[in-house]
Amino acid sequence: MRVSELSRSSGVPVATIKYYLREGLLPRGETTSPNQARYDDTHLRRLRLIRALVEVGGLPIAVVKDVLGAVDDPDTGLHDVLGRTVYAITGTGTDDGGDEFADAADADVRTMTAHTGWQVSDCAPALTGARTVLARLHELGQAPGDDTLKLWAEAADRAAEGDLRAIARSGGREGAAETALIGTVLGDALLAALRRIAQESHSAARYAPEK
Amino acid sequence: MRVSELSRSSGVPVATIKYYLREGLLPRGETTSPNQARYDDTHLRRLRLIRALVEVGGLPIAVVKDVLGAVDDPDTGLHDVLGRTVYAITGTGTDDGGDEFADAADADVRTMTAHTGWQVSDCAPALTGARTVLARLHELGQAPGDDTLKLWAEAADRAAEGDLRAIARSGGREGAAETALIGTVLGDALLAALRRIAQESHSAARYAPEK
Repeated sequence: MRVSELSRSSGVPVATIKYYLREGLLPRGETTSPNQARYDDTHLRRLRLIRALVEVGGLPIAVVKDVLGAVDDPDTGLHDVLGRTVYAITGTGTDDGGDEFADAADADVRTMTAHTGWQVSDCAPALTGARTVLARLHELGQAPGDDTLKLWAEAADRAAEGDLRAIARSGGREGAAETALIGTVLGDALLAALRRIAQESHSAARYAPEK
Repeated sequence: MRVSELSRSSGVPVATIKYYLREGLLPRGETTSPNQARYDDTHLRRLRLIRALVEVGGLPIAVVKDVLGAVDDPDTGLHDVLGRTVYAITGTGTDDGGDEFADAADADVRTMTAHTGWQVSDCAPALTGARTVLARLHELGQAPGDDTLKLWAEAADRAAEGDLRAIARSGGREGAAETALIGTVLGDALLAALRRIAQESHSAARYAPEK
């Protein structure tokens, strides 16, 4: 298909497609004349992926480029692709002002990893991210109790098990890497929405006035 | 304490404190002279709350003002405070381009609510949010299987149960509303981080090369 048709099918404007081509996010099409190139379904699929990461995931273009590089590199094994994509899209938070509460936050993280048996690298950015949020909760006088920490850890573990099932079902290394990337980014938005639905249901059961 | 001390204790610049006072996010202090007011621990606590919602939660000032209004209104019952805060901070997503996949997304949501027994209002913005993300997953050819959907639903349910335990432990209506607000906003960031930790652990168990 021509670029105009690629634009129609993907919902991405031609100017944006040309920008992605220049930036190397999207592979060039097959040149058919000095001013024309032909694109196929792999381009369409890649464009939809970029659009989801940017529009739903809110990722900056530079980060999208970085993670797509890991997906496209055939020498990168699946565990490393998952690691690179997840590390690239994980904010580590800013640890300002949380020092006073760092020890308490660290103890919370240890409570959760002990409860679930998680084995994780000490330099995982998500560990810093979790500690930053927990330090802020302590600062606000809203330190979660151990029962809440354990329920949250079980929740994250259950979600990750769902993620890995979806990844295992995807065909091949590239497909699995795409699933991991999409699932992690879009999954944050989905889990946040599901949690609010569950909160409403639990809150109604506990606190709603009798009609 | 004076405004300068309030600034030091909270880490919020004086100019920002004055902006919050003008906007009505922070109640006025007790006037001690035409140019001075005295502030107390309730002001400090409120400032820390605003800072967490803005800096960690990324909420716009107008939304913060709206949800604090619900927290401060003594005539609003606890279930309604939770509802107003959660509704105010929940993006509903943009349903563009997802129409073709709306039925499939709706079926996914029904699978999850049936699995968990959630009772939720049809107009909950989180329902629209969940459907929007699911439609995008279908469009990308990444529709999750029923086993993944059920694990994600269980994860959200477990997290919400942790939230409600924390809320129940907070003293009084205002305290509970604050806990709900902080827990929902900061909890999104925390759960996202925990999920990445759990993913790394599960991925290592499945895919890491033997050393």
